[in-house]
Amino acid sequence: MTIPRIWAPLLLIQSLLPGQSAEIGEELRARSLAMLQEALQSRNSYELLKGLVDTAPGRLAGTAAAGAAVEWAEENMRAIGLKNVRRQPVLVPRWVRGEVCEIAIRSSGDGSPEALSALALGGSAGTGGRALSGRVVEVNSFGQLRALGEDAVKGRIVFFNHPFDLKLRNTFAGYSATVPARSRGAVEAAQLGAVAVVIRSVTTASDDHPHTGAMRYQRGVRQIPAAALSVAAAERLSRALSERPDLELSIRLDCHTLEPVECANVIGEIPGREKPDQIVLIGAHLDSWDVGQGAHDDGAGVAHCLEAARLILESGAPPRRTVRVVLFANEENGLAGGRAYADMPQDQLDSHILAIETDSGGFAPRGFGVKGGQPMVEAFGTLDQLLRIYDLGQVVQGGGGADISFLEPAGVPVMGLRVEDHRYFDLHHSIKDHIREVHPRELALGAAALAVAAFSVADSGGVPPRLPSAGR
Amino acid sequence: MTIPRIWAPLLLIQSLLPGQSAEIGEELRARSLAMLQEALQSRNSYELLKGLVDTAPGRLAGTAAAGAAVEWAEENMRAIGLKNVRRQPVLVPRWVRGEVCEIAIRSSGDGSPEALSALALGGSAGTGGRALSGRVVEVNSFGQLRALGEDAVKGRIVFFNHPFDLKLRNTFAGYSATVPARSRGAVEAAQLGAVAVVIRSVTTASDDHPHTGAMRYQRGVRQIPAAALSVAAAERLSRALSERPDLELSIRLDCHTLEPVECANVIGEIPGREKPDQIVLIGAHLDSWDVGQGAHDDGAGVAHCLEAARLILESGAPPRRTVRVVLFANEENGLAGGRAYADMPQDQLDSHILAIETDSGGFAPRGFGVKGGQPMVEAFGTLDQLLRIYDLGQVVQGGGGADISFLEPAGVPVMGLRVEDHRYFDLHHSIKDHIREVHPRELALGAAALAVAAFSVADSGGVPPRLPSAGR
Repeated sequence: MTIPRIWAPLLLIQSLLPGQSAEIGEELRARSLAMLQEALQSRNSYELLKGLVDTAPGRLAGTAAAGAAVEWAEENMRAIGLKNVRRQPVLVPRWVRGEVCEIAIRSSGDGSPEALSALALGGSAGTGGRALSGRVVEVNSFGQLRALGEDAVKGRIVFFNHPFDLKLRNTFAGYSATVPARSRGAVEAAQLGAVAVVIRSVTTASDDHPHTGAMRYQRGVRQIPAAALSVAAAERLSRALSERPDLELSIRLDCHTLEPVECANVIGEIPGREKPDQIVLIGAHLDSWDVGQGAHDDGAGVAHCLEAARLILESGAPPRRTVRVVLFANEENGLAGGRAYADMPQDQLDSHILAIETDSGGFAPRGFGVKGGQPMVEAFGTLDQLLRIYDLGQVVQGGGGADISFLEPAGVPVMGLRVEDHRYFDLHHSIKDHIREVHPRELALGAAALAVAAFSVADSGGVPPRLPSAGR
Repeated sequence: MTIPRIWAPLLLIQSLLPGQSAEIGEELRARSLAMLQEALQSRNSYELLKGLVDTAPGRLAGTAAAGAAVEWAEENMRAIGLKNVRRQPVLVPRWVRGEVCEIAIRSSGDGSPEALSALALGGSAGTGGRALSGRVVEVNSFGQLRALGEDAVKGRIVFFNHPFDLKLRNTFAGYSATVPARSRGAVEAAQLGAVAVVIRSVTTASDDHPHTGAMRYQRGVRQIPAAALSVAAAERLSRALSERPDLELSIRLDCHTLEPVECANVIGEIPGREKPDQIVLIGAHLDSWDVGQGAHDDGAGVAHCLEAARLILESGAPPRRTVRVVLFANEENGLAGGRAYADMPQDQLDSHILAIETDSGGFAPRGFGVKGGQPMVEAFGTLDQLLRIYDLGQVVQGGGGADISFLEPAGVPVMGLRVEDHRYFDLHHSIKDHIREVHPRELALGAAALAVAAFSVADSGGVPPRLPSAGR
């Protein structure tokens, strides 16, 4: 591959603040532009993603598909030319969705029950080979549930019908506000004596596709079954309840949890040419949910990382410091990969000067969010300027990633790739998360942004400040 | 409609430069946020677009569909509550695609000809009821064509095989570099004696769908037929030529041009509450190509304008100055609507303090580009800050629109909505330009950005500077 190091004035869309441009060396600009152009022209990130989702769609931790993804990742790291390619064994939960997920409004008379589109939430217990039935308590918040109290909830099925707040510009803000019903709803409901939980899918879509995702139990609280209804099904159920408050819902799930099994984080490196023991980590999670292909979540992040590494390797000399690619196991249902990675001696943690995660989908990049307030943002001034020059976004406050969050207590600065997020939660954790929803140019630009971030920091004269080790 | 005027701290994603926020009044912020939230929550812009493409898909100027679009626009302007709703009659060209577009590589032996996916270019002459055949000269630029000269070109079919430059970040830059083969190729080729022109479609896609678009003839130069091949067909033809340089192409087109017919610009207003004779124009083009639905080009712009007007009207008092919505006729094949609109006395032109066009698709907005250099950008500082606060982009140099370009010589400042453009030229001018490619949130955000721009300028204490009247 030869990347022409030309300067394309047409790319200069966003204006620099006066004086800023002088701070960026010609070589760093040329390298950044070369990586951007190669990413766009080759569309290699899309080929990588295609390889991953063809090999291992629905890569839920502990499954054969997740194992195939680990092999695929190792092979591709070697093919790209990464060094020290290795697996870090990780014990992951083994949750099995099973074949049966039947949720229906029971008929009041002699009609047939009305089936609702649903998916068990990841980690949920099943109904033990039989259907569980009960009257329904519809609420839209934990506060409302608690106000109803044990008398109203005991023996019932709790229906969390909390709509996604569509008026927020940032869909991740809407997600954060809505997702507690999914992750903690079963505990809240069981504490009041409920026998099961159904939630309205946490999504910006309004169709009949349910969206799964992780739920948790709590020691000492009964483990009741939990499932997500499609938005259309949730609205049907809500309407039915307003007509027949005493209707019964029947639930049959055969999901169950087996003993933990071994999976792996996959790691590879571009050794630094001057300070190989200082590490800039770029990471994504290799696992996905079992429905859909996991194309945006987080196949796109995997493609971003591998392509960013390739762009750095093929565009010139390695940076001063090491760029380490880490593809984490089990982000979706347990975060065992992130936890295992961070389980290392303090001096090795200290050698991480930055960790960047990409886990927001393969849409057009908008730059990076960093944890640690305005001083941390300012430490990435060079990156911010490069992103603005090449119209790849900017560096703003607030970011990181689930897998790299375990590095924060050790003081490692963390950063997350930001993207145009309007379509993400339409697809997220559902059968719709398919490569046909990924645009090659948008994916390529994300990889280019990541390459520019990793290279510019790894090759920089200085290092960013540490996060306060008290952390998080 | 009640829009809650709350302040959502979650929306504050992008940080302001120190001190900037103080310059924006609380009322303007609240109004902007209310319009943004209503746009996102109602998804009304998508309903508007659906109405337009259901009523009048393929609204080529002069057709019945274009007439239906004019009626639809008038009705919807009235329904929204615009005042002074009216048609401005415009005489538009009447080009008819016809039923036949057959382009094929003639067989060298007794096999059958190889048909190529193609579309006549808009404005092209037909082949006069018969098939036209000839050997092919493949070039990738006018320079290469001219270097070959008349001896090599005379009696031949010229094949402009100029690939879209995919390595550019900005697809509009790639478009500008590639589109001359489409618009001027027939003239360049005919001047050297060619009998017809085929071009590689001007698109970022690489599939088998051809993309049409306007071409022009020049007085005194023979009017030869011109058509676009799909990218796949162009590559097939190129490969075939490398194997059989003397192959013949046959072309049969029955497109033709009739006498001009009357169509209309559709105009409606929110009269200003203090200075109704000062106008902020927001515009898009109501016509489209006849293939596809014209959903992104420029149904999205039409929806942006109508929804922006509704957002302004329903969120509070009208602005100080008038906001005028102009939906232009015949942008695609002649710009008669833009020309007719600007044909007004100088004092009326002087009353236009700004013209904003949206004609880049219904994708996530990135702010606005303005013509006139950095001083003009700085004149829109308030808008720039509002866009940054609500994460709708920023104001940058360079922009405008084809329809409003006719106002520039009179000194009217012009501005264009910028969007994430990666998917646009995959669809543009092809059967793929369909509402299923439009995302409701992305469309709504564009409408919100336009509403914020129109309202903040129309309600501002001052007016932007004029463009130099020598102009353009």
